[in-house]
Amino acid sequence: MSYVFDPAPIPSVAVDGSEDRLPVRRIFCVGRNYAAHAREMGKDPDRDPPFFFTKPADAVVMDGETVTYPPETENFHYEAELVAVIGTGGRNIAEADSLSHVWGYAIGNDLTRRDLQLAARDKGRPWDFGKAFDRSAVIGPVHPVDKVGHPDTGAIKLTVNGEVKQDADLAELIWSVPEIISILSHSIELRPGDLIMTGTPAGVGPLVEGDVCVVSIAGLGTIETKIGPRE
Amino acid sequence: MSYVFDPAPIPSVAVDGSEDRLPVRRIFCVGRNYAAHAREMGKDPDRDPPFFFTKPADAVVMDGETVTYPPETENFHYEAELVAVIGTGGRNIAEADSLSHVWGYAIGNDLTRRDLQLAARDKGRPWDFGKAFDRSAVIGPVHPVDKVGHPDTGAIKLTVNGEVKQDADLAELIWSVPEIISILSHSIELRPGDLIMTGTPAGVGPLVEGDVCVVSIAGLGTIETKIGPRE
Repeated sequence: MSYVFDPAPIPSVAVDGSEDRLPVRRIFCVGRNYAAHAREMGKDPDRDPPFFFTKPADAVVMDGETVTYPPETENFHYEAELVAVIGTGGRNIAEADSLSHVWGYAIGNDLTRRDLQLAARDKGRPWDFGKAFDRSAVIGPVHPVDKVGHPDTGAIKLTVNGEVKQDADLAELIWSVPEIISILSHSIELRPGDLIMTGTPAGVGPLVEGDVCVVSIAGLGTIETKIGPRE
Repeated sequence: MSYVFDPAPIPSVAVDGSEDRLPVRRIFCVGRNYAAHAREMGKDPDRDPPFFFTKPADAVVMDGETVTYPPETENFHYEAELVAVIGTGGRNIAEADSLSHVWGYAIGNDLTRRDLQLAARDKGRPWDFGKAFDRSAVIGPVHPVDKVGHPDTGAIKLTVNGEVKQDADLAELIWSVPEIISILSHSIELRPGDLIMTGTPAGVGPLVEGDVCVVSIAGLGTIETKIGPRE
């Protein structure tokens, strides 16, 4: 058996303080998981039910990389997020067992073609081309749980060219990491290498060519993304 | 450099008449690409604009496999589709050049949790959990272009337990394969191993445990899927 053409490289992200890589399988993202962000998107925050969208694994971009301004948008947005990395798969995971499935945590930036996302939303169409495009998932180095524990409180901030745009606390998550893992695992089987982007706080806004966008989460450091020229 | 845990196997599909495998990178699906299907979904068919949703590559299931009835749905549907397989990547591909990027064609069955898809659609939420779940993409063996050419006419049929449910012709596609490839490549960069599921004709409906679902396309043979017990 051989392949009729070469497979793509396995998508992977860096591990903090190590030369090792963590293979990425799928990327699941939670929609509207901070109340103030739900309100700025014109929706009432509620806890029933959470919803999810996805990005392809090969959309991953690492800390420090330049992201070209993507095609077909005039409203390209940042979204600071805490990312939970699944190390042990499973389905129908009880909330009390959820955290034992987490390998580590990273900082993420859920890059969004906001105009495409909102146009799709308002027509009842799929969000994929607003969310699941090339280089749309900035993921920082993964910090193992044995070093950082399970962050459920602490500052999450985002700046553009040094100006603070998002400034919230992980304690404001509507759905906690254990709740998200349990809910997800009742709809799909979680697998090692799945990333969960847990939602963004209020303050989303546009990026333009030349911007430098920095996201920080207490205990996880910072990640930086520069926006390059239009593709 | 090594991986902190083993990466998932590279998703792949069979090549007709060969032991070789074709690696799968991403799966793009065209929404409402047959007029009669658009009408049965309560929408007016139009040509402006087509829209896309995605499935993860590891959702692939081959011809002949049993698909367990998925969780969290009471309305699990079949959708017969022609699948175009990209062999040569590119972006901003001109319609006249599109077909030179196709490696081959396969029969597909775009399995759908219809209740989740429609609930999401009606709330303006992402379709992912209606479309992008485990084992949701049945893909038959890939037939190379040098053997089957570029099918743009001919019967596409689906039966459940021998009863005809979908019966249409590829000539009814609203957006042709060259048009779809060109449009997609202006929004994302196409890559080798990307699959494009080109939409389903009218006649969609439910599958239940024990059903045998067969899809046929003129020149590409048939594929069969048995529905197993609930997960």
